[in-house]
Amino acid sequence: MSTTISPLAPKSFPDMPDIEGVRIATAQAGIKYKNRTDLLVMVFDEGTAAAGVFTRSRCPSAPVDLCRQNLSNGTARVLVVNSGNANAFTGKKGRETTQATAKAAAAAAGCDEANVFLASTGVIGEPLDPARFTHLLGDLASSAEPSLWADAGKAIMTTDTYPKYATRTVDLGGTAVTINGIAKGAGMIAPDMATMLSFVATDAPIAAPVLQAMLSQAVSGTFNAVTVDSDTSTSDTLMLFATGKAAGRGAPAIDTTDDPRLDAFKAALADLLKVLALQVVRDGEGARKEVEITVTGAESDQSAKRIALSIANSPLVKTAVAGEDANWGRVVMAVGKSGEPADRDRLAISFGDIRVAHEGERDPAYSEAATSAYMKSDEILITVDIGLGDGKATVWTCDLTKEYVAINGDYRS
Amino acid sequence: MSTTISPLAPKSFPDMPDIEGVRIATAQAGIKYKNRTDLLVMVFDEGTAAAGVFTRSRCPSAPVDLCRQNLSNGTARVLVVNSGNANAFTGKKGRETTQATAKAAAAAAGCDEANVFLASTGVIGEPLDPARFTHLLGDLASSAEPSLWADAGKAIMTTDTYPKYATRTVDLGGTAVTINGIAKGAGMIAPDMATMLSFVATDAPIAAPVLQAMLSQAVSGTFNAVTVDSDTSTSDTLMLFATGKAAGRGAPAIDTTDDPRLDAFKAALADLLKVLALQVVRDGEGARKEVEITVTGAESDQSAKRIALSIANSPLVKTAVAGEDANWGRVVMAVGKSGEPADRDRLAISFGDIRVAHEGERDPAYSEAATSAYMKSDEILITVDIGLGDGKATVWTCDLTKEYVAINGDYRS
Repeated sequence: MSTTISPLAPKSFPDMPDIEGVRIATAQAGIKYKNRTDLLVMVFDEGTAAAGVFTRSRCPSAPVDLCRQNLSNGTARVLVVNSGNANAFTGKKGRETTQATAKAAAAAAGCDEANVFLASTGVIGEPLDPARFTHLLGDLASSAEPSLWADAGKAIMTTDTYPKYATRTVDLGGTAVTINGIAKGAGMIAPDMATMLSFVATDAPIAAPVLQAMLSQAVSGTFNAVTVDSDTSTSDTLMLFATGKAAGRGAPAIDTTDDPRLDAFKAALADLLKVLALQVVRDGEGARKEVEITVTGAESDQSAKRIALSIANSPLVKTAVAGEDANWGRVVMAVGKSGEPADRDRLAISFGDIRVAHEGERDPAYSEAATSAYMKSDEILITVDIGLGDGKATVWTCDLTKEYVAINGDYRS
Repeated sequence: MSTTISPLAPKSFPDMPDIEGVRIATAQAGIKYKNRTDLLVMVFDEGTAAAGVFTRSRCPSAPVDLCRQNLSNGTARVLVVNSGNANAFTGKKGRETTQATAKAAAAAAGCDEANVFLASTGVIGEPLDPARFTHLLGDLASSAEPSLWADAGKAIMTTDTYPKYATRTVDLGGTAVTINGIAKGAGMIAPDMATMLSFVATDAPIAAPVLQAMLSQAVSGTFNAVTVDSDTSTSDTLMLFATGKAAGRGAPAIDTTDDPRLDAFKAALADLLKVLALQVVRDGEGARKEVEITVTGAESDQSAKRIALSIANSPLVKTAVAGEDANWGRVVMAVGKSGEPADRDRLAISFGDIRVAHEGERDPAYSEAATSAYMKSDEILITVDIGLGDGKATVWTCDLTKEYVAINGDYRS
């Protein structure tokens, strides 16, 4: 694990308000880490709706299988998350672990097993012994408190160098409702999904199908638009819980996706997810710079996104950014290798406000000094205009540094 | 540029015999490098047939455009290669450079411009001034000698730490014919194509269409089965020239692809291309280990190759190999992210002869000590059985080290 905090870490963390109907507890179960929490329990009041988006890996972890299965009910009562072991590619033992954990969690929260959600993050392929933490769940559920969001963010970290939080308060039909979210990265980050774990909760009274539709839509320009290393985790999980408790303060129950009273909430949710997703990128393993890549003029938005991800995932582009080298030739390479329609002689490329290339060659006004100075920034914007159509997309990534190699060269040991 | 030679470099270089009808000269043009050759001229006798395979980048370099255009004639008289500047993404200036170079090369070799082939390798996006080297071509063409294959291999290097050679002598209808090849890597290596530049010549009398068919077929399991960093160059060029001079010693003229007298030649060509492709991988930027990845039991050969490349291009797999960490969980991740049909609970994975996982979980006989000892090898074999069908494929890559990041973080400066 990295011992230094990412230079891109936020200067301060938000005060996370309580979400009525959500109680939190954490513990040191000693699953892998010493002297830190590695177990999170989040208890939801009865009537909480749930939605989720998961990894598209063809080899998902056992907890992802369980979440997908239980999500069909649309209701949640308890979430158990452990860090240090992903319980992925653990075969029959992995299913036994999720079954034992779900049983213990249901007993602890006094609910049906179908209302339990689980997530695990850490090493893949090592059996996870549920006896390491199931005996703790009863006490955790009974002692859980609404105010422990800061602790929740810390308990789910793996190689993250800082916990990730976001909160928004927004009007829903005349009543203020709150959305809180936590997330963790920091390697094996790629769409789709682009984070290992993120959990969001609100007191808004929103029906599960509406919640699911909103989440699926919001994820496209946020968590599914970030990449650290193109490696998609087996465990990626983003869940959204709505306790509905704001109804007691007059918030209207929302049952349809196109309810106009939901507009502000949708925007706030997308904004919150983007903040969390960018925090994941900014804490990418070894990251020293955030890179925002916007592609315009592609044949379609989908084509633009593919080109943008080809650039974002190129080791040569990422190492050039790490070296503060405005090597836009590698951007051309990445456009070319994407396989998407592109005409070399129409390409225009900018780093920040500096147009380095247009009409397929170096800009006549190109200044090595000005561009090199720009590359020293913490946040690098790369804009590519393909010159063919109206398609556009923005994705975010980080640079590729020696520290990434160091972190991942001896992660298990 | 790296100053240390790859630990995977060959212990010795082959003696490269002459190829009758091929003459070679090199020079120090000072295009970018100091105190080394950076210009290669290869002159072919009249009647030389040519074939080529090029990058699939949508933004190819100007020399690739020229080669594709001239290849329609199927004949070659002169090849000019420079290192230090790729003449890629250089727009109108790039075309002017290839035109001026082709004109000077045609005058130097006393041939039509349609029989000139060009290749450039190095930095992308910087204009390449042909005046830096066109004045040298006349003397080079007239002083060229058959014996300078070793020099040829050195002149085309960029970040390569050693030149790459292979030679084979094979029977063609009762007469011994020779095939010589040179290649250079070492970053921006991915199918398709998987090398920046490789040039192969033979004295066999083989018609251009047959030459092209053979080359296109042979490339699939060789240059298109290796990857260093998943970044496809704008300049990838593999050309095969056949002077036909062995006809004077009795070799039969080959006009059809299915001529059985060609079988040994086909096998030798494929073998030679594999040797060159593996040398490229073994000199991948920062490489310390060669990794051979074989996928069996996939739904089809194509599916197997996609899975194998997903593993080979995974930064997390490659950094684990660099760290001598048998992190087979990351192999599972890479299988999962490939999107190809796979069943987690049927996967079996071996490192060398050690089966680390089967039926979707860690092998009961797994020994951390034995596996860790194996990971110290220079050559790592990873075998994955998907358990679904008969599809199989093998690809080769190298590990991802801090040295890769260092080389690419300040390549331009």
